[in-house]
Amino acid sequence: MSLQADMLRIGEQARDASVFLAKASTAMKNQALAMIAEQIEKRQDQLLSANEKDVANGQEKGLDSALLERLTINPARIASMIEGVQQIIALPDPIGEISNMHYRPTGIQVGKMRVPLGVVGMIYESRPNVTLDAASLCLKSGNATILRGGSEAAHSNQAIAQCIHAGLVVANLPRTAVQVIETTDRAAVGELIKMTQYVDVIIPRGGKSLIERISQEARVPVIKHLDGICHVYIDDEADIDKAVAIAYNAKTHRYGTCNTMETLLVAERIAQRVLPLLAEKYLASGVELRGCPATQALITGITPATEEDWHTEYLAPILSIRIVPNIDSALAHIRQYSSQHTDAIVTENWTKAQRFLREVDSSSVIINASTRFADGFEYGLGAEIGISTDKFHARGPVGLEGLTSQKYIVFGDGHIRL
Amino acid sequence: MSLQADMLRIGEQARDASVFLAKASTAMKNQALAMIAEQIEKRQDQLLSANEKDVANGQEKGLDSALLERLTINPARIASMIEGVQQIIALPDPIGEISNMHYRPTGIQVGKMRVPLGVVGMIYESRPNVTLDAASLCLKSGNATILRGGSEAAHSNQAIAQCIHAGLVVANLPRTAVQVIETTDRAAVGELIKMTQYVDVIIPRGGKSLIERISQEARVPVIKHLDGICHVYIDDEADIDKAVAIAYNAKTHRYGTCNTMETLLVAERIAQRVLPLLAEKYLASGVELRGCPATQALITGITPATEEDWHTEYLAPILSIRIVPNIDSALAHIRQYSSQHTDAIVTENWTKAQRFLREVDSSSVIINASTRFADGFEYGLGAEIGISTDKFHARGPVGLEGLTSQKYIVFGDGHIRL
Repeated sequence: MSLQADMLRIGEQARDASVFLAKASTAMKNQALAMIAEQIEKRQDQLLSANEKDVANGQEKGLDSALLERLTINPARIASMIEGVQQIIALPDPIGEISNMHYRPTGIQVGKMRVPLGVVGMIYESRPNVTLDAASLCLKSGNATILRGGSEAAHSNQAIAQCIHAGLVVANLPRTAVQVIETTDRAAVGELIKMTQYVDVIIPRGGKSLIERISQEARVPVIKHLDGICHVYIDDEADIDKAVAIAYNAKTHRYGTCNTMETLLVAERIAQRVLPLLAEKYLASGVELRGCPATQALITGITPATEEDWHTEYLAPILSIRIVPNIDSALAHIRQYSSQHTDAIVTENWTKAQRFLREVDSSSVIINASTRFADGFEYGLGAEIGISTDKFHARGPVGLEGLTSQKYIVFGDGHIRL
Repeated sequence: MSLQADMLRIGEQARDASVFLAKASTAMKNQALAMIAEQIEKRQDQLLSANEKDVANGQEKGLDSALLERLTINPARIASMIEGVQQIIALPDPIGEISNMHYRPTGIQVGKMRVPLGVVGMIYESRPNVTLDAASLCLKSGNATILRGGSEAAHSNQAIAQCIHAGLVVANLPRTAVQVIETTDRAAVGELIKMTQYVDVIIPRGGKSLIERISQEARVPVIKHLDGICHVYIDDEADIDKAVAIAYNAKTHRYGTCNTMETLLVAERIAQRVLPLLAEKYLASGVELRGCPATQALITGITPATEEDWHTEYLAPILSIRIVPNIDSALAHIRQYSSQHTDAIVTENWTKAQRFLREVDSSSVIINASTRFADGFEYGLGAEIGISTDKFHARGPVGLEGLTSQKYIVFGDGHIRL
C-alpha cells in the first residue's frame, strides 16, 4: 500500500475513534489511563530493552550526548512517566462542562459546552516520554491521537505504544484512539499535516527548524512556539534584592529551556547598583556576559553584544545585557526582539507594572517573578502538551483546555424566531 | 510601486496601528466609534451618490437582482448601519479583562488577560454595510483592520472608508487603524492572506467558492464557515405543537440564511402525526418538498430526494425530508451530512436531549428551538463578524470575544523557581 493510502487509513481510523472518545465517560477515560499506567509498570523490562536498542543505535550513529541523554529511559524516568499519568487521572475532565447558560429576552437559554477538538497529530523528536504524556493528555480531553516520534526513538515509542494499546483494550476503548506511526519515512509527516479532513490540530515539539518547516507546510492548524527569547526588565524603581534574585534565577535555573531569560534589560538609573552584584553571581556560575557599550563600561572585560545577540536564543550559559534609559525603551526593545514567549518586569511602581502588563504582547507577562514560572505545571494546568506563542486558539502553556473547543448550546421550549 | 510592495506597506501600517489600538482606552475607542457614526450621518448624501454609481455599474454589468439588492444603500439602511455602531459602543470592552487570577502553592498569582488579536483581514463580497460593521467590531476589540470588499461595491466602500477615517482622525486615532484596499486587482487578496508577519486572522464572508479558495491558499489563520446544512430532528417523543412550530420556522423564517434548516429528520413512530400537518403548512408557503421513500408514501406527489439532496444547502424554498427509525439513525445522518453549523432536536425526553447535546458535533446544538436562533444578536453577542464552523479558536457566531486572545499574567513578589 502506498504511504499516502496508509496515512489516510490512519487518519480515518483516528476520526472514527474520536467520535467514540468524545462521548466516553470520565470514568472510562480514567480507567483506560489507569490501565495504561499499569501496563507501563508491568512491561518495564521490555520498555528498557527497547530503549537500549535505540540508545545503542544512537551511539553508533554518533548522536551527541545531550540527545542521547534525552533519549535514555531508566527506572526513575519510567516511575516519573507513570506519576505523570496518575496526575492526569486526578485532573478534572474538561469535556461536557457547560458554562455561561443564561436566558435571552426571547426566552431561549444560551450557553457553551466544552468539547474535544477531535484528532490531535503530535510530531516530536527524541524524548520517548512525550509519547505517553501526549497520549494521556489527549485521551483525558477526549481526543484521538496520531503520534509521530523521532526515528532515533522508534523502538522505545513502539514499546510504549504497546503498553498504551494493551491498556486501551482492557478498558474497552478502541486501539485506534492512540496510533503511533511506524514508518520512519519523512513523507509521512508531510501527509499528516495536510489531512484537514481527519486531523484537527498539529502540535510539533522539537527544534526550531522542524517547527518552521511544519508551520510552513501544514494545512491543518498548528499549536506551536518557535523560540523563547525571554526578557527581564529591571526598572529603576525595582527592589534590588528581588531584581537580583529574579534575574539570576531566570538565567541560571536551567539553561536549555524555552522560558529561560536570554536578554536582561536594566534601567540606567539603577544599573550601577544592580549590575555589578548580578555580574558577580553570573560569572561565579560560569555565565558568559555580552553587553551593550554602557554595560561594558560598568562591567569590565565582557564581550560586546552585537545586533545578532538580541535576536538569539542561546539555550546556554550566555546572557546579553542592555542598559536602557527607561521603561519606554525597554518596551520598544521587547517589541522588537521578543519572541513573544515570556517577558518579565521587576518594579515596585504600580503604574509601570500596569503598563508592562498591558503593553507587552507575549504569551506570558510576569511582574516581579522569574520567567522560569512560565510552564503548565507551575500555572496549575496539571500538565502541558506544549507552549503556544500564537494568539489564535491556545496561547501560553497548553494543557487540557487548549485541547478542547466549545460549542454553543441552546435550550428552548418550542421557541421560534419572530 | 508593485502590488506586493503596496500590500506589505498596508500590512506594516496595520501592524503599527495595532500596537496603538491595543493600548487605547475604552473611552478613546468609543469616542472614535461615535465620531464615525456622526460622519456617516453627516455625509449621507455623498454615501448615497457613491452607492448609486456602484448600482448603475452593476446594472450595466447585468448583476442579478439579489446581488443588486444586497449592494443597494438607502436612508433606512444607513440608519440601521448607524444603529449598529451605537450598539457596539454600548457593548462592554473585552480588552484588559483579567480572569481566573489565583494563587499557586509557590506563592505566585496566575491568571489571564484578554488582548486583541492584532490585525484582522476581512474579505467580503457585495454588502457595503460589512465595511462599517467589521471596522467597528475590530476597533472596539482593539484590532487594526484591513478591509477588502467586492469590486462591485468599490465606490460605496471608499465613501464609507472616508467617514471612518474622518472619525478616527477627530478621535486622535491613526487613520491606518482601518484600511480599505483600493485596488480591484484580485492578486491583492492573494498577498493579504499570506502576510503572516502582519495579519493575525482572515475572515472571509461570501459565497462558498470564495471561502474555499481563501481557505486553500491562506497562510494566515481563517475564521469561516463554508455552508450551513442544518437539520431538525423530530423525535418520537416530541411535542407535536412545538415540532410543527419549530420545523416550520426553521425553514420558512428566511430562506437565504446559513442557519435555515435544509433537511428535516422525523422519527418513524411520529411521522404520521406530524408530517401531514407540516407538509400542508410548507406547501401553503410554496416550499418544495423532497422526500425519502417513506416520506413519499406519507405525502403524495412530492419529489424523491436523492443522495445529493442530503448534501445540499438550498438557500431556497426547498426542503428534504427523511424518516428515520430512531435517534441513533438521526445522529448517524447528521454525522454524515451536517456541515456542523447548527442542528436541532425536538423532544420531551430528557435522556435523548442530553445525548443529542453531547453527540452532535456542530457549532450550535439546539434543543426544542428553531435553528434560526443561531446568530450573534440572538445569542447576545451584540453583533457578529461571522460564524465559524471550525473548532479552532472561535466556534459558532463570532462577536467581540472571538476577535481577542488571552495572555497569561503572573504576579510575584520576588519569586524565583526552586
